[in-house]
Amino acid sequence: MPGNTFGSMFRVTTWGESHGPALGAVVDGCPPGLTLTADDIDSELAWRRSRDDRVSTSRREPDQVEILSGVFEDRTTGTPISMIIHNRDVVSSAYADLKDLFRPGHADYTYWHKYGIRDWRGGGRASGRETVARVAAGAVAKKLLEQEGIKILAYTLALGGVKAQKLNFEAIHDNSLFCPDPDTVPKMLARLQEVKAAGDSVGGIVEIRAQGCPAGLGEPVFAKLDAMVASALMGIGAVKGVEIGSGFAATAMLGSEHNDALTPSGFLSNNAGGILGGISNGEEIVARVAVKPIPSIEREQQTIKASGDPTTLSVKGRHDVSAIPRIVPVCGAMVRLVLADMLMQQRAIR
Amino acid sequence: MPGNTFGSMFRVTTWGESHGPALGAVVDGCPPGLTLTADDIDSELAWRRSRDDRVSTSRREPDQVEILSGVFEDRTTGTPISMIIHNRDVVSSAYADLKDLFRPGHADYTYWHKYGIRDWRGGGRASGRETVARVAAGAVAKKLLEQEGIKILAYTLALGGVKAQKLNFEAIHDNSLFCPDPDTVPKMLARLQEVKAAGDSVGGIVEIRAQGCPAGLGEPVFAKLDAMVASALMGIGAVKGVEIGSGFAATAMLGSEHNDALTPSGFLSNNAGGILGGISNGEEIVARVAVKPIPSIEREQQTIKASGDPTTLSVKGRHDVSAIPRIVPVCGAMVRLVLADMLMQQRAIR
Amino acid sequence: MPGNTFGSMFRVTTWGESHGPALGAVVDGCPPGLTLTADDIDSELAWRRSRDDRVSTSRREPDQVEILSGVFEDRTTGTPISMIIHNRDVVSSAYADLKDLFRPGHADYTYWHKYGIRDWRGGGRASGRETVARVAAGAVAKKLLEQEGIKILAYTLALGGVKAQKLNFEAIHDNSLFCPDPDTVPKMLARLQEVKAAGDSVGGIVEIRAQGCPAGLGEPVFAKLDAMVASALMGIGAVKGVEIGSGFAATAMLGSEHNDALTPSGFLSNNAGGILGGISNGEEIVARVAVKPIPSIEREQQTIKASGDPTTLSVKGRHDVSAIPRIVPVCGAMVRLVLADMLMQQRAIR
Amino acid sequence: MPGNTFGSMFRVTTWGESHGPALGAVVDGCPPGLTLTADDIDSELAWRRSRDDRVSTSRREPDQVEILSGVFEDRTTGTPISMIIHNRDVVSSAYADLKDLFRPGHADYTYWHKYGIRDWRGGGRASGRETVARVAAGAVAKKLLEQEGIKILAYTLALGGVKAQKLNFEAIHDNSLFCPDPDTVPKMLARLQEVKAAGDSVGGIVEIRAQGCPAGLGEPVFAKLDAMVASALMGIGAVKGVEIGSGFAATAMLGSEHNDALTPSGFLSNNAGGILGGISNGEEIVARVAVKPIPSIEREQQTIKASGDPTTLSVKGRHDVSAIPRIVPVCGAMVRLVLADMLMQQRAIR
Repeated sequence: MPGNTFGSMFRVTTWGESHGPALGAVVDGCPPGLTLTADDIDSELAWRRSRDDRVSTSRREPDQVEILSGVFEDRTTGTPISMIIHNRDVVSSAYADLKDLFRPGHADYTYWHKYGIRDWRGGGRASGRETVARVAAGAVAKKLLEQEGIKILAYTLALGGVKAQKLNFEAIHDNSLFCPDPDTVPKMLARLQEVKAAGDSVGGIVEIRAQGCPAGLGEPVFAKLDAMVASALMGIGAVKGVEIGSGFAATAMLGSEHNDALTPSGFLSNNAGGILGGISNGEEIVARVAVKPIPSIEREQQTIKASGDPTTLSVKGRHDVSAIPRIVPVCGAMVRLVLADMLMQQRAIR
Repeated sequence: MPGNTFGSMFRVTTWGESHGPALGAVVDGCPPGLTLTADDIDSELAWRRSRDDRVSTSRREPDQVEILSGVFEDRTTGTPISMIIHNRDVVSSAYADLKDLFRPGHADYTYWHKYGIRDWRGGGRASGRETVARVAAGAVAKKLLEQEGIKILAYTLALGGVKAQKLNFEAIHDNSLFCPDPDTVPKMLARLQEVKAAGDSVGGIVEIRAQGCPAGLGEPVFAKLDAMVASALMGIGAVKGVEIGSGFAATAMLGSEHNDALTPSGFLSNNAGGILGGISNGEEIVARVAVKPIPSIEREQQTIKASGDPTTLSVKGRHDVSAIPRIVPVCGAMVRLVLADMLMQQRAIR
Repeated sequence: MPGNTFGSMFRVTTWGESHGPALGAVVDGCPPGLTLTADDIDSELAWRRSRDDRVSTSRREPDQVEILSGVFEDRTTGTPISMIIHNRDVVSSAYADLKDLFRPGHADYTYWHKYGIRDWRGGGRASGRETVARVAAGAVAKKLLEQEGIKILAYTLALGGVKAQKLNFEAIHDNSLFCPDPDTVPKMLARLQEVKAAGDSVGGIVEIRAQGCPAGLGEPVFAKLDAMVASALMGIGAVKGVEIGSGFAATAMLGSEHNDALTPSGFLSNNAGGILGGISNGEEIVARVAVKPIPSIEREQQTIKASGDPTTLSVKGRHDVSAIPRIVPVCGAMVRLVLADMLMQQRAIR
Repeated sequence: MPGNTFGSMFRVTTWGESHGPALGAVVDGCPPGLTLTADDIDSELAWRRSRDDRVSTSRREPDQVEILSGVFEDRTTGTPISMIIHNRDVVSSAYADLKDLFRPGHADYTYWHKYGIRDWRGGGRASGRETVARVAAGAVAKKLLEQEGIKILAYTLALGGVKAQKLNFEAIHDNSLFCPDPDTVPKMLARLQEVKAAGDSVGGIVEIRAQGCPAGLGEPVFAKLDAMVASALMGIGAVKGVEIGSGFAATAMLGSEHNDALTPSGFLSNNAGGILGGISNGEEIVARVAVKPIPSIEREQQTIKASGDPTTLSVKGRHDVSAIPRIVPVCGAMVRLVLADMLMQQRAIR
């Protein structure tokens, strides 16, 4: 199956290139009767938009969705919800230089080998711009999850090596980095400025939590909830790792430390990250994502042309220093898609 | 879609409980004309079997597959390959004590909440025993990959906090732990003995490499190769994290460090782990998996009964101290399934 | 996707060749808590078995299923239900003559072109024997449908040109042909004897009704309930046509005749066959199936060898004169699979 | 899985309501490198458009597609092809009368029961207007099939009880009814006028042929080529039956008549309709479709309101007298989608 559809009951198909006329998503299987307006989606898209031009991006994208189907009188009808987001401020000419070479760390080289043809304008389908459609779809899933009392938090745990020291979830949306530790924000911003000045880039760690998720979601054995979350998050460009609960730290723990003891009033710890045997256990679902540094940097790099000849590249023009913070709402959206799907699947069996 | 099927063109459905009469896998979509015998599968199953009773398990499972369909005169026919592995040496009575309580760290609690009913005998479908069907299916995929010159390595990178210091791939199958560093093996074994004596358990890290994989495999944007690998590996019980290439280390690197420079003779490094934009780039594919400690331990733990009342549990009888080494061939099998599927999908488009 | 899996939430994968050791089905997604025993399945398999050796078949198949997983203490657990039916009385040598030629009307020729290899023993996967697995899976679906008050009837409407004149559903299981018109049975049997004596074969028409089906099942626009029923029935070997409700007769009717008028007490007619816009309307669902004559006949036919050289063929030995009545329970089983799937899908959205 | 996606490797998702702003299709999995322009699609859409206002429709729809993604410099890139067709000339107010009642023969009643909400404007998603997206997707499939030398013919075999007496494929596009028998066209048109004058409607039979299709397409056992064709065609609104080759006529034939004899120069007949055992045999694939009379008629009919109270309905305003000829290109498009999908699946296995 081609890879632009996600989910089986709550099912999203996305399309669009960074420098084409538009991008979009079709959500098929959304239950009928949910209230849904363009504003519900635009407000999510706004989080993905850069809010601090100094550090994030110089590209302005006042994204606005148009809902083309599946909603009647502000309620979902059960038919496919088609959403379109037009590309504005598209300057393909800036990419003409990149037409005949492969940018290190980018998908140029692999798209070429896969398809024998590529849309070289700004990454085409492999651009981070693609995620706008995921966020739009996630905004629809959010409506379903809200109805069930499920809430998703996504935030920056580390950026450029600087780590948040505490988790104050109230603070996440008060700063441009979605950082839950207000005291760490200035350090992260300073790190970004420093890296930007050096013509370089950095990555970081995003953490996602699902609160209020009932026990019983997830389909053993291959479509386990953690497997689906891993697929959802690893499928975001720039992500190189996914952990659930204790994650890699578990590899050095004893069983007696790692097991979450059960008591009549609930689990005493959450090393499981809310998932046991691939099924939610009613605790908070906790996932972490490793984000690599953005590959487009001003510092000169070795690469090759499409002809195979060696060349060097220094990427100038507008680009982010880090995929964080823009990737944060994308991570949240992907977890929402997984949970909406699993929720509907569970409804089917009981 | 229920979760017991994996893959879309090379498609595996598994079934079976740890204490039922048998487990099995149906491989649908396997190309015709591959040579395949029960021996091809049994030899893979043998790697999964315990080879060192002192440290691994006391349960003897001389697993032998029976191929029931899809193979004629030792060649695959293109029709579904049904494989069955009978359970032997099954003692359900040992689990009678566990019938009415939930074991910490196990799926007992979540199966109960998901289905409202559970087969309490030894974990039922959530038992590690389930992976025997994955390994059988992976053995079929191996035949297809071999034809294409693709080879999978899977080995133990760390166990109970003890790490391999070098990677000598020749040595992997020379020791009971699938460790590529012979000098570390005695330390790992000592650690296992120590933990066993304490009635406890440990986890570790498994690394998987795919060699000889052509560029171009993987389906953007959701079914990226890394997303499918992450799903495949996170879907194995006991796995809490998956990394590709640089993984979580990427989060503290600069873009200029992380980008793999391209030269006429290939990439100069492999932080990408062989995958760019979700598509293989022709380099070695490298994935790592975080394995949690086995939850069944002799040390007493707090838990609750099905009734909700508190109780304590000390798991006695035969059980492993670590999912490693038995999980190692399972990881290899899952990556094989992903690559066989992606290979066939790529054939379809070009 | 390879074609041996049917359904998306109630999901069946079948495997097995007519002359292999066994055939089977894996039902994934069956809701937990249904009572299910081997007897429930064997009783359905018995209907598929020949009950009148004079006219139907000389092959005795006392089919007995073994349930290998997914059922615990006679209740489904929500995990995959694996069922195996062993082949007995298999005489491959009878087919040795057919090894190097293509039988007219059979799949020999097309399997050869598709796969480049074939299991020539008795049709292999393309044998009518394959349907035993469908009937087993349908027996599981039946348990779910019974819980919802849905009942399936399948019966012979015409055989060898002889048509039932009335529909007495009580009589269906009182005769060896599943004919709802007892007075027509002797004529049908006479027709079969006549054709058998001539070394020839005949087809007929099977009708299937689903009673008690609630309004609202079926997924527009491609997975309409009638589309899924058509796929399910046309996918049975020997079927050349499928009709819903008025079917081909509708092509010569006026809209004013065809529309089923709606009144406060229900529809006044059922030309729709219980399906409007691809969704069940609460009336009886009615489908008809065109069954071609069995291709294996004693009368000599022109054909070619695998080498391409011309030859002639007269099929001797045990074979049926008509796919009816054995195909009748298969048609019922397939409609059950569709409805079980659609029922679960509908549960997911509301 | 929700029902708005068709195909597994060549995969189409459609969306849109008859009176919403637009309809569209996303084609995922289309091979890269095919030439494709909006003109290629518009020319197919034009066939679906009414070309004879007297008999067909009074609604003018100068449909023009906009390709939003997946095509770069007039060639497909392998990424999703998003196509949008804007609705023009939409007058929802004409449907205000229908808001609170269920039209006989329409999906109003069933959508209401399925979703508990409906877009009552002109049928919403259940309108014939939906098929514009199918035709657009079929136009993409056509490019792939042309590359392989496969050609699809679709034509009117019978209309309102008037049957074509000969098959002159050259003549199909020379008349407004897609009738292969020019001498029958005036009789069909007269029948349409007569029915229109009576405020009534009629159906008919459409035949579809695929020429140049190689042997080997189709996936046994559930996704047989004929099963997929049946699903594709029965999933079109107004279709009540599907036949392959001999179809229902087979039910009264002898095996010796029905079997297509094989000779070194090919099959001597084509009762199989080009499909044996669910796999193409290299002959022409032949399918026929039963089209019911259009349910919207001026003649007064009994029906009920949403409240359940009885009422009567006479549908005035613009509407077709028959789904033929507009359904003819839709049938062709659906068969193209099936063959493109099956072609790609076959590439994957060999």
